[in-house]
Amino acid sequence: MSLDWLHAPCAQPDAVLADAARAHQLQLTKPPGSLGLLEALAIQLASLQHTSKPALERVWISVFAGDHGVADEGVSAFPQVVTGEMVRNFASGGAAISVLARTLGANLEVVNLGTVNDPGDIPGVRRAIIAPSTANFCLAPAMTVEQLDAAMSIGAQSVQAALAAKAQLFIGGEMGIANTTAAAAVASALLDEPPSCLAGAGTGLDAAGIRHKVSVLERALERHADASTALEQLRCLGGFEIAALTGAYVAAAQAGLPVLVDGFITTTAALAAVTIQPDVRPWLLFAHRSKEHGHAHLLNVLAAQPVLDLGLRLGEASGAATAVPLLRLACALHNGMATFEQAGVSNA
Amino acid sequence: MSLDWLHAPCAQPDAVLADAARAHQLQLTKPPGSLGLLEALAIQLASLQHTSKPALERVWISVFAGDHGVADEGVSAFPQVVTGEMVRNFASGGAAISVLARTLGANLEVVNLGTVNDPGDIPGVRRAIIAPSTANFCLAPAMTVEQLDAAMSIGAQSVQAALAAKAQLFIGGEMGIANTTAAAAVASALLDEPPSCLAGAGTGLDAAGIRHKVSVLERALERHADASTALEQLRCLGGFEIAALTGAYVAAAQAGLPVLVDGFITTTAALAAVTIQPDVRPWLLFAHRSKEHGHAHLLNVLAAQPVLDLGLRLGEASGAATAVPLLRLACALHNGMATFEQAGVSNA
Repeated sequence: MSLDWLHAPCAQPDAVLADAARAHQLQLTKPPGSLGLLEALAIQLASLQHTSKPALERVWISVFAGDHGVADEGVSAFPQVVTGEMVRNFASGGAAISVLARTLGANLEVVNLGTVNDPGDIPGVRRAIIAPSTANFCLAPAMTVEQLDAAMSIGAQSVQAALAAKAQLFIGGEMGIANTTAAAAVASALLDEPPSCLAGAGTGLDAAGIRHKVSVLERALERHADASTALEQLRCLGGFEIAALTGAYVAAAQAGLPVLVDGFITTTAALAAVTIQPDVRPWLLFAHRSKEHGHAHLLNVLAAQPVLDLGLRLGEASGAATAVPLLRLACALHNGMATFEQAGVSNA
Repeated sequence: MSLDWLHAPCAQPDAVLADAARAHQLQLTKPPGSLGLLEALAIQLASLQHTSKPALERVWISVFAGDHGVADEGVSAFPQVVTGEMVRNFASGGAAISVLARTLGANLEVVNLGTVNDPGDIPGVRRAIIAPSTANFCLAPAMTVEQLDAAMSIGAQSVQAALAAKAQLFIGGEMGIANTTAAAAVASALLDEPPSCLAGAGTGLDAAGIRHKVSVLERALERHADASTALEQLRCLGGFEIAALTGAYVAAAQAGLPVLVDGFITTTAALAAVTIQPDVRPWLLFAHRSKEHGHAHLLNVLAAQPVLDLGLRLGEASGAATAVPLLRLACALHNGMATFEQAGVSNA
């Protein structure tokens, strides 16, 4: 593989600036700790952005779309044609993430990695087709070595584009019918846990549908039981967009660009990235606890404290985008509040 | 009392528009229900604002400040002089709520109901002095009948000002050293529950401080055991700002102006308002679950599902202001997403 770049060192957060930000918070006109997670987020962003004035004016969102061979096993409530249809919807502004990005003034990049229903060349969509779909991983590895390589590099290219745009935060999103199945497969393999702990309703399976999904996953995990590294597990059981996200997260950590992780599928990619290189972890902030079964468990494994818990389960980076205003308010408070001394307010 | 206005009828939410909003959500390009609480908030706002396009461009925030005689009992980590100092800080832009209101483009009204350390006439502060402080409710009723009347009317006047400014949402906040003690007293009396269920650390008491606070509350509740109506409990055990908030919430519900409730003290006022008039309840949205002991219990009693859970415990309307961007995003999604038909996306 030409994936050697994955092992280049990550950037380091600035511990001195973290301490200074923590001390600054104690001087602001409020009881110490009374802004809770908003204080912790500002301190973390100061440390990651290497500044005493953290800011999130320029937010970059990349949504990676790709189809999954395992959709043939009937694991989704929606037909496969929807992946390509949604690529068009992302670009034309009607999808949830389109509305959110517009409202936030964030840069939205849509990346088509390959869909069975090919929407063709669309203004506003980066066309980076690897294949119309991964292989059905019940029958064969989802990707070839070359396909995995391509997907991870495409993810890293999005981070390069974000850096060129001077983004202060990178958000990855995903779209792909059956991709909660692929994510559950990858997470099960990475954690060596039964798929029933990780498989959920996705876009809307009922109890029988989830049981079927678990049996599909059991077959797939048995077939690829000899995949023993994170990269091999990602290759055999993942998807183009999950691999792209994994590559993007590693590249962001290497470049020192903070990442806001979205829901179940992106958190699976985050787990893969951290498994490949543990120094990725400090660069990851977690936006929300999704309603998808398995997400809460992954967050626990990663010792992640998500910002929101709104019962979201849409993907597309929608949960991460929804958390952006709170991170911005955390920065505004950190930078804009008066100290006890400035305001002439008595301390405890 | 001249508080008869409290019993005038509340406005009614629009059930037809709620149904229409619910049906509209099912047509948007996402799995049904996948935007969780963001869907519910948009539907609720459509119903309360009597519109198919809910919006929160104009948000009104009133912060009510007042001092508490019970501060003499040593129930706060901060000295009483801070209440007046913070009134000045609110107006000069250095407090958390000042930063949040500015960032959100919200209208911030600061109302001084009476502080022992009187900051005098300050530009940007509505001077509505009732007395320098309530009485120490361990020794006497906190307020006279006339003082309760005045405080509740001042709260209602803020709602009138919000309506005159065409506000689409009313947020109340509070500041007053020792006011978690007063709120715990009122909530204990309203619910007929022991104060240990409702007293917490406030601005930062340790365990011994909380035990002392509980013993102060037990004395106060015993002294005012014959206060049997919500208004009498509010008069004997409340504070100027708690009464103003209660009056404001009732007035907002009467005028059909949606309210976003903040933390422990404002939720106590909300409980008082709903006890006085149950039809207030549909007009209340709840911003967050604060870290103050007792808040989660009050939210349960009110069957409230708060938007955020960030470990906040500052008051000043800061938690409510922090939730505003999420309500705005809920509206943007509701109004801006494409339907399956518009986008040419296949449904499940």
